[in-house]
Amino acid sequence: MAAAERMVVIGGDATGMSAAAQARRLKEPGELEIVAFERGRFSSYSACGIPYWVSGAVPERDELIARSPEEHRSRGIDLRMRTEAVELDVDGQRVRVREQEGTEQWVGYDQLVLATGAVPVRPPLPGIDAEGVYGVQTLDDGQELLDGLERGVEAAGGGSGRRRAVVVGAGYIGVEMAEAFVQRGYEVTVLEKAEQPMSTLDPDMGKLVHEAMCSLGIETVLGAAVTEVLTDNQGRARAVATQDAEYPADVVVLGLGVRPATALAREAGLPLGESGGLLTDLSMRVRGQENIWSGGDCVEVLNLVSGRPQHVPLGTHANKHGQIIGANIGGSYATFPGVVGTAVSKVCDLEIARTGLLEAQATAVGLRFASVVIESTTRAGYYPGTRPIHVKMLAEHRSGRLLGVQIVGRENAGKRVDIAAVALHAGMTVEQMTALDLGYAPPFSPVWDPVLVAARKAAAAVRTH
Amino acid sequence: MAAAERMVVIGGDATGMSAAAQARRLKEPGELEIVAFERGRFSSYSACGIPYWVSGAVPERDELIARSPEEHRSRGIDLRMRTEAVELDVDGQRVRVREQEGTEQWVGYDQLVLATGAVPVRPPLPGIDAEGVYGVQTLDDGQELLDGLERGVEAAGGGSGRRRAVVVGAGYIGVEMAEAFVQRGYEVTVLEKAEQPMSTLDPDMGKLVHEAMCSLGIETVLGAAVTEVLTDNQGRARAVATQDAEYPADVVVLGLGVRPATALAREAGLPLGESGGLLTDLSMRVRGQENIWSGGDCVEVLNLVSGRPQHVPLGTHANKHGQIIGANIGGSYATFPGVVGTAVSKVCDLEIARTGLLEAQATAVGLRFASVVIESTTRAGYYPGTRPIHVKMLAEHRSGRLLGVQIVGRENAGKRVDIAAVALHAGMTVEQMTALDLGYAPPFSPVWDPVLVAARKAAAAVRTH
Repeated sequence: MAAAERMVVIGGDATGMSAAAQARRLKEPGELEIVAFERGRFSSYSACGIPYWVSGAVPERDELIARSPEEHRSRGIDLRMRTEAVELDVDGQRVRVREQEGTEQWVGYDQLVLATGAVPVRPPLPGIDAEGVYGVQTLDDGQELLDGLERGVEAAGGGSGRRRAVVVGAGYIGVEMAEAFVQRGYEVTVLEKAEQPMSTLDPDMGKLVHEAMCSLGIETVLGAAVTEVLTDNQGRARAVATQDAEYPADVVVLGLGVRPATALAREAGLPLGESGGLLTDLSMRVRGQENIWSGGDCVEVLNLVSGRPQHVPLGTHANKHGQIIGANIGGSYATFPGVVGTAVSKVCDLEIARTGLLEAQATAVGLRFASVVIESTTRAGYYPGTRPIHVKMLAEHRSGRLLGVQIVGRENAGKRVDIAAVALHAGMTVEQMTALDLGYAPPFSPVWDPVLVAARKAAAAVRTH
Repeated sequence: MAAAERMVVIGGDATGMSAAAQARRLKEPGELEIVAFERGRFSSYSACGIPYWVSGAVPERDELIARSPEEHRSRGIDLRMRTEAVELDVDGQRVRVREQEGTEQWVGYDQLVLATGAVPVRPPLPGIDAEGVYGVQTLDDGQELLDGLERGVEAAGGGSGRRRAVVVGAGYIGVEMAEAFVQRGYEVTVLEKAEQPMSTLDPDMGKLVHEAMCSLGIETVLGAAVTEVLTDNQGRARAVATQDAEYPADVVVLGLGVRPATALAREAGLPLGESGGLLTDLSMRVRGQENIWSGGDCVEVLNLVSGRPQHVPLGTHANKHGQIIGANIGGSYATFPGVVGTAVSKVCDLEIARTGLLEAQATAVGLRFASVVIESTTRAGYYPGTRPIHVKMLAEHRSGRLLGVQIVGRENAGKRVDIAAVALHAGMTVEQMTALDLGYAPPFSPVWDPVLVAARKAAAAVRTH
């Protein structure tokens, strides 16, 4: 009997462990040995759930863990925790790993999965590493933050007056963390360098988000470039300074986004894109490599609307990538065609969603387009609980092809972005969209769904070009 | 100057008045005179909203009225209420109309819009026309029902004990009226002839609805063919009898569905389909007629998945048809390609949706398919307020093309049917659907949206054929 092949997985979260689990389903241990290394203390968890754990909506950390190391091991995956891959030798088909105690060894592979994820952007500012300044990328980060909050409250002797959180960055992580601290009863200030929150939206839609955040009691300061984190005499963060002002803080959270964690791959000479993400083919094989695969937050994916590669760190893609890699290593067949740029988020009852291209993105790839915004409601106008929704829609001149949709609204607004996401995958025109047979009943939608209203207006706008 | 053309509209609700309004936008009164006849007392209202008015969720009848007769008139549409069209003379291009007082006249037209809607099915059973038995098709019906409830309460002297409502039929109208009476505090019994509620679903999904309705305290009796409405000595309905039992009732509501109201068209020799609905071309012109148009609840539409014409009485189609007819009469251009069979409804917090074909419908048109059911949650499993959702998916053998989706779940389940509806319009395969870039964040969806989970399972099932 031939010796088993060895699949080595670097990174024990969504992509890595999905790949391992899927390959395990397809191949017996006698055929394929699977070894996975995770440098942190947790496997297969929902990083996207961290804001809701911090807010208290999710009471227990372990609820965020889809599958523990023990569960993986019981299914025939040799998952080694607190073990970091420090060097990749492509020619030798081996990785050097370092255990927590410092022991190192080389591990050979037949198939390698690089699922190293992303690292939070942390600008080199004075005080940025002070106690009381937190990132929220990993479950370990979240635990550190919650432990810190507890210590902070103890240090304040139970506290008098409202505690203050300063969130740096008003992107997805920033606004979700803002919500988390609102839920915890903090006074929340969000500092954003740009002139709008959510730069994943066009400025006009970002303005709606800004207004709504203010009405939710979240002070959102735009054009605020952080220059320093000021500390007290114990070295603890006490305020965040911008060029213009100081914002006192009991806790500082960094929500500046992430970049691909590809140092290992870079040093090994693997191909990286402009964002620093690994480049793969449609089967999630690293370009030019026979037996190295990658996916999730450390790769670039094709944006099907712009035709450009892009770094899109989202759990939903990471899980798909893992499943695809596992299928391919397991001898089945699967591909990832690309993304259309869908994202949805919320701040309290404000829902924010987008798919496709923004105006600036469309212009940057040479597209000309009509752009419309409509205001409607999430249910029939007369139905209790109906809430406002704004839909922006971009459609290409001449072809009338849908290019993108942005939604800002309240309860039940956000997931409507899926209608546009599917239409983008299908290459539909906005004229075709006006005929979409969408679910209608008064509790669910006005008789013209807001997306249809936007499509009608976009179709009319396109006809004039 | 040439005399204005005259557009005559028969029926003052969604299709008729949308057509009139759209044509008015495109042509000045000097170019196009618009006359509309409505036999009832209300124009442009949401019949779909009646259950929520009866339940009390919508407090005022007038909230259901999108545009009053006066508003239409102020926009240059000569809308005549309480006026019924009683004869259509196609060769003479004229209709005979009868006013409330009985006055009749012939009115000539250049363009005619038949928007006569549908009439409720009312089987010829003893007692079916008794006081206390109500249909809920029109706003007049709803008013009659609410007046009757008030009189009933008065007659009972304020009442002792819970009042009882019997709903005949467990389709959309039936279950929505069941909810309405639950909201009003009634004891509710639904009698359904078939062996499942919601025959718009497959039996296995219907069973889930049945169980949920029971858990909501709605007695739902299946296989219950109503034989008679029993009356008291004042001729008031007091119970509904089936072959097996008698169900005491303070109020009886008929929810047996509707059929096209096409007597006028039939007598005039216009082409009708199997359901009795008018047949039109893609521009909503009645087949073989140059200047007669029709849409809404009185026409058949093409089901794009089965390739067959079908009667689909839904406000969302009626509004689209009106807009299309108005555009075409107004000299613009618009077509209605067909439907994919989407519908969504709710009973209390139970949400029920479907699109595409049921198993029996697919079989009837010669399709062979794989069929899968999955159970998931509406939000991330750990997120507060996550609720169960069942998704059934049908995909064609060999091609893998999506044929239909059915959803039974709780809050935030139903509108997910739109994802499948767009995929059906686009002719997607379930394999393609597994890659859909849908909106993900823990408050909105598990990391694999339930529709993606179903698509993965369906894709795997199709591969074995």
